[in-house]
Amino acid sequence: MILTVTLNAALDVTYTVDALVPYATHRIGSVTARAGGKGVNVARVAAALGHETAVTGFAGGATGTAIRAELAAAGLRDELVAVAAESRRTATVVDGVDATGFHEPGPEVRTTEWSAFCASFAGLARAAHVVVCSGSLPPGVPLDAYAVLVDIARRHGARTVVDAEGSSLRAALAARPDIVKPNLAELTATVGITEPLAGGRALCAAGARSVVVSSGPDGLLAVTGEGTWRARPPRRIRGNPTGAGDAAVAALAAGLVHDAPWPRRLRDATALSAAAVAAPLAGEFDAPAYHRMRVEISLEELDATHLDR
Amino acid sequence: MILTVTLNAALDVTYTVDALVPYATHRIGSVTARAGGKGVNVARVAAALGHETAVTGFAGGATGTAIRAELAAAGLRDELVAVAAESRRTATVVDGVDATGFHEPGPEVRTTEWSAFCASFAGLARAAHVVVCSGSLPPGVPLDAYAVLVDIARRHGARTVVDAEGSSLRAALAARPDIVKPNLAELTATVGITEPLAGGRALCAAGARSVVVSSGPDGLLAVTGEGTWRARPPRRIRGNPTGAGDAAVAALAAGLVHDAPWPRRLRDATALSAAAVAAPLAGEFDAPAYHRMRVEISLEELDATHLDR
Repeated sequence: MILTVTLNAALDVTYTVDALVPYATHRIGSVTARAGGKGVNVARVAAALGHETAVTGFAGGATGTAIRAELAAAGLRDELVAVAAESRRTATVVDGVDATGFHEPGPEVRTTEWSAFCASFAGLARAAHVVVCSGSLPPGVPLDAYAVLVDIARRHGARTVVDAEGSSLRAALAARPDIVKPNLAELTATVGITEPLAGGRALCAAGARSVVVSSGPDGLLAVTGEGTWRARPPRRIRGNPTGAGDAAVAALAAGLVHDAPWPRRLRDATALSAAAVAAPLAGEFDAPAYHRMRVEISLEELDATHLDR
Repeated sequence: MILTVTLNAALDVTYTVDALVPYATHRIGSVTARAGGKGVNVARVAAALGHETAVTGFAGGATGTAIRAELAAAGLRDELVAVAAESRRTATVVDGVDATGFHEPGPEVRTTEWSAFCASFAGLARAAHVVVCSGSLPPGVPLDAYAVLVDIARRHGARTVVDAEGSSLRAALAARPDIVKPNLAELTATVGITEPLAGGRALCAAGARSVVVSSGPDGLLAVTGEGTWRARPPRRIRGNPTGAGDAAVAALAAGLVHDAPWPRRLRDATALSAAAVAAPLAGEFDAPAYHRMRVEISLEELDATHLDR
């Protein structure tokens, strides 16, 4: 089972407009609302790949109730823990050009609620093959939350993936997660290095067992104990890049479940990420495109000589 | 008592950002949510002027519950009628320059819910001196809703103000409301005339007993059975124009309660509208500015010769 942790789960509301016009009033024709947050997207993709999944994190208030209702409608196992504060919303305004996002801050989590979460998480981790920790931390949760969860997961026999950035990612490294997956901007925000190979190696030196850096249309770079590889999609995919990183994480989690060799994990993650761009909603992917692209990914092993250049 | 009708009541959510950047993601520092819709703003202003008020309209779902909670917190009498569908939200993104609005469509109102509303409204109208009908109609409500409500109000002895536009305003005219208050854009959208005097006279010819046209910083024009006047604020007021028209409507409703002469009504409405621009939130006004400006408004009577030019 793949357990995804979304401490800052949200109700993702999408407003479609003809054109975003700053300082005008827009009448919205239709509103869609889905459970969101990176871990929820990972669970959607992993479930579509046929994996047993569960979603945990926090949910509170009327927005929390709406998040739970949408998870149920999507057939995702809801293991969210209640908080007294109101869950957050994100609003995304989509026009013919691109998307503009407005992300509310998360609910204030009390110390007792964090303790209750850790207890619930330990029970879930026992049944999980892989635990995925994704996204930002809501206020009130300790900065080393992901280190605590990676520790608990390992003690219960689960492998771990952390998709975070900055101080929460740096704190997570002390617990030696199996995989961390920053994108280029997150890598830079975390280690102050803009070059993916050097940045990935810095994260490994700081505690990550392996690092996968996503570079948008340029694909993925993996720095691992088995070797270092770069994978690129066969062509530039047009579509919605939101959720592409989450699809890559779902593939990496699936690779841990199957204990697949790294070259195969990286091909799958690159193809799934590109296939997610081709699908309109975060948490979905274009299945035919995925299967087509898995064999079209170009994979390059970077040898030690290359590494030292 | 002033009864305000907001059939399309909303939860007005405000996101404050440093700068609205199209196609970027904005992390919102703080979120404020208030009960909204034009009639709610009118009630806030009328209550602040010392009038007994009540708010009616529709409320449904978790958003309806949040609207009711905020009305209670504001000390406004809540006479909203329940609907099964979810009430709408509006999101307003405010930066240092101006506000950008995103208005969700209203809840689908069932025929039985509209009938229940009319029955509740008749009971409330009996105790009301003035009924104010403001804003758009949610889906499912008949297009002649305001004509129906004006008829019921008159039968129960209440005077009526309608602040609407287009087809819902045109339909309301058949019931001969005491005052209709379009702004210039709404006037044009309703009668196809851009000039306020000619447009106001067209609305009177079509059934309105009197018409007040608001022209933003240029003030108000009243076309009435007693005469025709134009009132202008003493200077251009800087601030938030959202809710300025609702403040004018509150003053006009107060004028009906007191049966004040038209020149005084128009001075008060112009000053209150300008004082609302000076206050940061819709439904509020700068009280010292209001009292100062009441004596500074320039009022011009347009005689018949002028009218015929």
